[in-house]
Amino acid sequence: MSFKVTILGSASAKPTATRHPSAQAVDIHEQYYLVDAGEGVQQQLVRCGINPLKLRAAFISHLHGDHVFGLFPLLSSLGLYGRRTPLEVFAPAPFGEILACHLRYFDADLPYEVVWHATDTTQHALLWENRTVEVWSIPLRHRVPCAGFLFREKEPPLNVDKFRIAKYGLSIAQITAAKRGEDVLLDSGERIPNAELTYRPYAPRSYAYLSDTNFSAKAARLCTGVDLMYHEATYAAAERRIARERGHATSAEAAEAALRAGARRLVIGHYSSRYKDESVLVEEARRIFPETFAAIEGTTFTIEKHD
Amino acid sequence: MSFKVTILGSASAKPTATRHPSAQAVDIHEQYYLVDAGEGVQQQLVRCGINPLKLRAAFISHLHGDHVFGLFPLLSSLGLYGRRTPLEVFAPAPFGEILACHLRYFDADLPYEVVWHATDTTQHALLWENRTVEVWSIPLRHRVPCAGFLFREKEPPLNVDKFRIAKYGLSIAQITAAKRGEDVLLDSGERIPNAELTYRPYAPRSYAYLSDTNFSAKAARLCTGVDLMYHEATYAAAERRIARERGHATSAEAAEAALRAGARRLVIGHYSSRYKDESVLVEEARRIFPETFAAIEGTTFTIEKHD
Repeated sequence: MSFKVTILGSASAKPTATRHPSAQAVDIHEQYYLVDAGEGVQQQLVRCGINPLKLRAAFISHLHGDHVFGLFPLLSSLGLYGRRTPLEVFAPAPFGEILACHLRYFDADLPYEVVWHATDTTQHALLWENRTVEVWSIPLRHRVPCAGFLFREKEPPLNVDKFRIAKYGLSIAQITAAKRGEDVLLDSGERIPNAELTYRPYAPRSYAYLSDTNFSAKAARLCTGVDLMYHEATYAAAERRIARERGHATSAEAAEAALRAGARRLVIGHYSSRYKDESVLVEEARRIFPETFAAIEGTTFTIEKHD
Repeated sequence: MSFKVTILGSASAKPTATRHPSAQAVDIHEQYYLVDAGEGVQQQLVRCGINPLKLRAAFISHLHGDHVFGLFPLLSSLGLYGRRTPLEVFAPAPFGEILACHLRYFDADLPYEVVWHATDTTQHALLWENRTVEVWSIPLRHRVPCAGFLFREKEPPLNVDKFRIAKYGLSIAQITAAKRGEDVLLDSGERIPNAELTYRPYAPRSYAYLSDTNFSAKAARLCTGVDLMYHEATYAAAERRIARERGHATSAEAAEAALRAGARRLVIGHYSSRYKDESVLVEEARRIFPETFAAIEGTTFTIEKHD
């Protein structure tokens, strides 16, 4: 029942010798989701020991090159690897036109389907769900239409209290009914409320990805109680004016967003190339939100189960 | 008067954790030329200490993704860096359409011009020249239209023999005339043949890039006497059949090409991902052409001046 976020890229638009552009792999119950796809993402996946064929879906926040240029080489390679399973891609328009250009000139014979879903970056909407997770869009404030993503683990199945099973001598059928959330009717005619028999093994976990964006109180509110928040921190507070003009956030604003959301932990990234060492940004954020950590290529943040 | 080739990528289509797709930087007299542009080339340039703004022109052998996907992110970044100088790009059609797609969706406001020249991959033709170098196309045999490139340094200026200057008491004007290749008429009326006064400081140097291709005797012949030849060696000789089917060469065939061309040195690359260690390919080639070296990211091959 894993819930992990692996950083594949921590840079902003200008490349550096050590940092890669924005990309992350989210592992929820051993199913992998790609969040943004900066150039080199396919190699970063390999370096981090993540099989690109395991990707279930890709979520692209916006159509600036440093968040999407790595997707097209990845699509080609998945064809070389022999993928047959369709790949769902969530991205704002006109991604479909860009994809069509790529397929026409480079992958006319791709052996699997790329299914594009247009995200409405103005809406907080459910984009994807399966038995274990829901993925919601989070409207962001950038220079172009941009949405972050909120990954919400679904309620885990109920566990049945072993002592109650013994106490009431429950049959397999009664235990199964209890796991379904039903009350149990004993042979004696007594009805045992489900709440007395079962408990949630752990609280559903959540992860929010917020990049690229100006500070947004609304986005923070939509992430209330999140276990782990990634928030872009392209600049230090001293560069607040540049950040505002360019549709980016400062490290202090990232911390403010985590504070308002009541997040458990904050990861910052999307560092401007002017910061050779990101520790200045981390220290700035920690003065506001102590549980701040730096996005560094290859680092995995595990969200442990908790009550 | 530098003449250097830096390997930016040595892999074939499938990415590995350590190898990058095809790309090289050719430095001729401190002017830089990009040869192929696999994904991540802009970061590889930075890692190798080559300022992407210094690129004069890019030469793309063919339109398979592993040779061109890195060009578009590079074009975007050059815009961010504030490039104003036009960038010449030599590539087969329909590169212009692909470039138009990129510019429409990602770089509508690029602050410099990308000037595409369509290469006719069936012709051995002069593509580019300036005062120091000529670049010629070399038709190759791949699954799609593909041309290699031959970089030929121009004849260096004549040096005038100091002893002859003294012997004949030449004036500045007479020395300048001799440097232009003219005979010199002394005040005595005696005519001194230019050949007696001058000498070439060194022989023009040359570099051939041959990828992707089946073995081609014609391509080898067009590189006769080349100082340094890069030839793809995707497979070992044992995989000759696969190599032939896929439009690639074996390491032995790369060595055979260098042997036929009378090259001074051979560099092999474009290794299939099945070869975790390329030494097996180098050893195979060295049995035929001893002066064979492995393309490894970050390695620079310097072509020294010689008579």
